[in-house]
Amino acid sequence: MKEPIVSALQIRNAGERIKPYINRTPVMTSASLNKLFNTNVFFKCENFQKVGAFKARGATNAVRSLSPDSLMHGVATHSSGNHAQALSWAAALAGTKAYIVMPSNSSPVKIEAVKGYGGLITFCEPTLSSREETLQKVIEKTGAIEIHPYNDTRIIEGQATSALELFEEIPFLDLIIVPVGGGGLLSGTALSALHFSSDTKVIAAEPMMADDAFRSFKSGTFIPSVNPETIADGLRTSLGSLTFQVIREHVSDIVTVSEESIVNAMRFIWERMKIIVETSSAVPLAAIMEQRIKVDGKRTGIILSGGNVDLSNLPW
Amino acid sequence: MKEPIVSALQIRNAGERIKPYINRTPVMTSASLNKLFNTNVFFKCENFQKVGAFKARGATNAVRSLSPDSLMHGVATHSSGNHAQALSWAAALAGTKAYIVMPSNSSPVKIEAVKGYGGLITFCEPTLSSREETLQKVIEKTGAIEIHPYNDTRIIEGQATSALELFEEIPFLDLIIVPVGGGGLLSGTALSALHFSSDTKVIAAEPMMADDAFRSFKSGTFIPSVNPETIADGLRTSLGSLTFQVIREHVSDIVTVSEESIVNAMRFIWERMKIIVETSSAVPLAAIMEQRIKVDGKRTGIILSGGNVDLSNLPW
Repeated sequence: MKEPIVSALQIRNAGERIKPYINRTPVMTSASLNKLFNTNVFFKCENFQKVGAFKARGATNAVRSLSPDSLMHGVATHSSGNHAQALSWAAALAGTKAYIVMPSNSSPVKIEAVKGYGGLITFCEPTLSSREETLQKVIEKTGAIEIHPYNDTRIIEGQATSALELFEEIPFLDLIIVPVGGGGLLSGTALSALHFSSDTKVIAAEPMMADDAFRSFKSGTFIPSVNPETIADGLRTSLGSLTFQVIREHVSDIVTVSEESIVNAMRFIWERMKIIVETSSAVPLAAIMEQRIKVDGKRTGIILSGGNVDLSNLPW
Repeated sequence: MKEPIVSALQIRNAGERIKPYINRTPVMTSASLNKLFNTNVFFKCENFQKVGAFKARGATNAVRSLSPDSLMHGVATHSSGNHAQALSWAAALAGTKAYIVMPSNSSPVKIEAVKGYGGLITFCEPTLSSREETLQKVIEKTGAIEIHPYNDTRIIEGQATSALELFEEIPFLDLIIVPVGGGGLLSGTALSALHFSSDTKVIAAEPMMADDAFRSFKSGTFIPSVNPETIADGLRTSLGSLTFQVIREHVSDIVTVSEESIVNAMRFIWERMKIIVETSSAVPLAAIMEQRIKVDGKRTGIILSGGNVDLSNLPW
């Protein structure tokens, strides 16, 4: 097998680099869930991370990897989700600017959140080509460094630190289940498992309605999603070239789940565990509840990716 | 000053007695809250307690304090809230029965919850006299031991263990703020502060719309609430004789808050801390946000009393 794109040392260094800025998130369990499925599930709570999502890890690692000279003109990305907030927050904390290109139809809640963290927004048409063109213009004008939401080794290293912490705290996991959108968290987790917990199988869970990773993984050819409508809005993006490569090589399986089971799993976590997670975070538990992944008698890790929810607009 | 009704040893013994059955709940903080008020607030998360509320502590202590002979015929109470669930759960875990008298207009969610924990329900008219009469009949028929929701030293000892754990983990608190309904949690906390953290001021927060504790405390005479309508449904009960006595002697102050600020504080906790707390739990933070209690530069403990919420019926 060829050398993985991120080494154990790079992940450990990322962990040290971001440590002063991020939260070491707690691991929680649910006695009722464990009883129901005769299992042991350990939830790594990135909903308690800074800015409410694991994205704070990758964004901080990317920003803090830049030299002072590179950082001077700021960082830039196109995103309407948690990466936009995370990059704005990480840039402000490092004393620089974040230029965020957002589609004009982004929700007001998300626009306000980015502004709240100090991000400087440029609006564009809600198409991928407009997003990319607008970002190029912003970069030419400002000299900012682009930080892609997931197709970037600095981002992947940062996201890998969540699983690293989980493996440190909970050894001997039989498997770890992670939601997959662009694949930053999944490829980071797969590389952490490879380096630090090689007996742990890495399985991805994806909404059936945005199953590009599933189809790409099964066919061995990159197949993007076209305007997927899943309720798990953090998982609507398609894989990138780097993340697809890591996933092909180091992920055991990808399973898909229905919209209904995502909502049921989310509500289960809210009601029984008394914590707030966003729809995307509920996808791995949905895979267990739908019995797409058998956990009977096993030790399973799940990364709860985030907790940013519009409380005035819940899916039940 | 005369001897307090519960000694340090009794609280420590209660802690040991209930330890195998309850959760040692985590303490959480909110960087954004601390920044906003230039303060340090430590939240003791009883929403993560068994049955979703601190009531599991008192109920377990009461049940486990009984001799096998006394326990044989079960335990009984009248309650429509978390105590009914907690007693049902604690009794089942100890291998005995819980007879719960509930008003016929109790919410279906609460009735189902009590049944789910194995409680045997007898319905009564929704008046205090009917509740008490029905409970007496149940006790005569079954020989069950009555466990009052708060006016009972075994319950007070159990509720006191939450603050004991908080003081162990977070020393040098300047104050601790607790919601007050019947006063079990408040009197337990006041006794724990007296014995284990005597420099910590104990302050109660109460909904203005159910201000019997405030009026009783200020006047020195017991004044019950009459059908209070506050949204904080866990705090609609009036003080008991035992809890009023402890509160008069060992609580520094009681402040009241508006309904609007309770909802705002609850939403703040959900949005910023990503945890689910019930309305009653938000009352101490409401007191801070309304500036009824000054926390500038101070170290403040807050007991988040519970997390049992009907997710289909939120107050926003």
